[in-house]
Amino acid sequence: MTCFDETAAQAARARQDSLTKPPGSLGRLEELAVFLAGWQGGAPRLDRAQALVFAGNHGVVAQGVNPFPAEVTALMVRNFRAGGAAINQLCRVADADLSVVALDLDRSTADFTQGPAMDAAEVEAAMAAGAEAVDASADVLILGEMGIGNSTVAAVQAASVLGGGAEDWVGPGTGATGGILARKLGAVAAGLARHAPRTARDTLAAFGGREQAAICGAVLRARDLRLPVILDGFICSAAAAVLTRDDPGALAHCLIGHESAEPGHRRLIAALEMKPVLSLDMRLGEGSGAAVALMVLRGAVACHNGMATFAEAGIG
Amino acid sequence: MTCFDETAAQAARARQDSLTKPPGSLGRLEELAVFLAGWQGGAPRLDRAQALVFAGNHGVVAQGVNPFPAEVTALMVRNFRAGGAAINQLCRVADADLSVVALDLDRSTADFTQGPAMDAAEVEAAMAAGAEAVDASADVLILGEMGIGNSTVAAVQAASVLGGGAEDWVGPGTGATGGILARKLGAVAAGLARHAPRTARDTLAAFGGREQAAICGAVLRARDLRLPVILDGFICSAAAAVLTRDDPGALAHCLIGHESAEPGHRRLIAALEMKPVLSLDMRLGEGSGAAVALMVLRGAVACHNGMATFAEAGIG
Repeated sequence: MTCFDETAAQAARARQDSLTKPPGSLGRLEELAVFLAGWQGGAPRLDRAQALVFAGNHGVVAQGVNPFPAEVTALMVRNFRAGGAAINQLCRVADADLSVVALDLDRSTADFTQGPAMDAAEVEAAMAAGAEAVDASADVLILGEMGIGNSTVAAVQAASVLGGGAEDWVGPGTGATGGILARKLGAVAAGLARHAPRTARDTLAAFGGREQAAICGAVLRARDLRLPVILDGFICSAAAAVLTRDDPGALAHCLIGHESAEPGHRRLIAALEMKPVLSLDMRLGEGSGAAVALMVLRGAVACHNGMATFAEAGIG
Repeated sequence: MTCFDETAAQAARARQDSLTKPPGSLGRLEELAVFLAGWQGGAPRLDRAQALVFAGNHGVVAQGVNPFPAEVTALMVRNFRAGGAAINQLCRVADADLSVVALDLDRSTADFTQGPAMDAAEVEAAMAAGAEAVDASADVLILGEMGIGNSTVAAVQAASVLGGGAEDWVGPGTGATGGILARKLGAVAAGLARHAPRTARDTLAAFGGREQAAICGAVLRARDLRLPVILDGFICSAAAAVLTRDDPGALAHCLIGHESAEPGHRRLIAALEMKPVLSLDMRLGEGSGAAVALMVLRGAVACHNGMATFAEAGIG
């Protein structure tokens, strides 16, 4: 694994302290500029931002865990490609290049309450698809997902990796209430009872799904490229958290773009000892919260590189 | 006072519920789009954003309440005009037109611990300068300030308008510690003991300053224009809060762009029963937090106007 460049980060901190403002007064914007500098290994830059949305389908929807049918995944992918979704608008405002990677939408993973969601080859293929989608020339990578049923997958992944039971991690997702919510809790409990994976790949195989494996592949590839990542909400963060099973520091190059309104996300962020950039009660997925966070990073980088120093301004 | 257009807001809510996402899943972005629609009286728009930074000097700096000398106000105004400050970079990223209005920097207001900071004519002149600076063709107005000593003014204003003592509202500002902080507390206590204003104008006269009066003038003018306002941090919010002395609903067309790291801001926001858009530990002033909040509003408006409806996408 590549490492944070402490020399570049120190240079960025020193520059921050020389700029025309009370030291530390840009708060999180200063921290974000230093974070980017350390991972990029130089002055922070955001000339090219890539957004990747991975989409997959999930066998567990057979358990009746979601108010929407699985067909909506493909319809939303069509909507992404037509430019009609939230992530399209947010990427335009945040100046990110959006690519949507649909992963075998015509066949769901297997139902994890009945057996493994994927075999090892399927896991590798989806991870490779994620890795290959990463643009090596990007300065930052936004990750998002779409997949009917995947907040159930996220809950079981989080419980498997971080502990706790179904009730700690299951929330409404796209709008589960009543019987749907009860079935979601039951499916997560059944998955936890059936599978006890110990590695990241085994966890992805046990519970799925393809978009989760692709997120893991992209996060690993970004680390090799020293490319900072902005994770999105609960589902994206839970997928990435699977990697901490193999390496507790696997997400050091990642930011959590926002704290989702999905209740499990706060617990997940705390367990990962991370700090979201934003908290806007969003709970859409698609990378939408990460795209809004990119706007904040753009402000941070603009201040870092564009502000005058006290010496330049003749102050002090 | 003009009113929120409930019909336009209802139309915006109905559109939000028709867009390709689970209802409510864009969280605060939906609320912000509806807020803009209601105040603008139609579909939300942000074609033209104006940022106004008002700068003034304060007699209370004679009490030794700030680590920086009053001359820094003029030097920072020069920095704003040269494009070297944080607000310049953030307005460029957020696409806001920045104007800086320096208010009689060559003469401070009077020291409020010794008597009124301004006379009635000075208050009116500064309020008029604020009102006149507002661009009637703007779709949103960002307000910010610069003035060495003005976190002391903000603390005494907040205490006078909202209750509590000096210790409830005084914080480090640009970096007051030790003896400076003690003198800041003493100055605020002395100001509260000396003055008991009951109206907005009397409060501005008692404590100053010119940039605070200009902010009040701009907020009132924006209300006449149905122009939504994004207030910045503690100092800007405290200035605007003075208007609630005359009308408890005076800030209904205003958002608080961010919750500042300055401790009094959280208390102030709670007292005003408002909700900040962002919380990024910023404490710079200049309108910097409001400018970052504008980026979030741009995302909200882009989603509102640009997303496909379920019907358009052939879903559901």
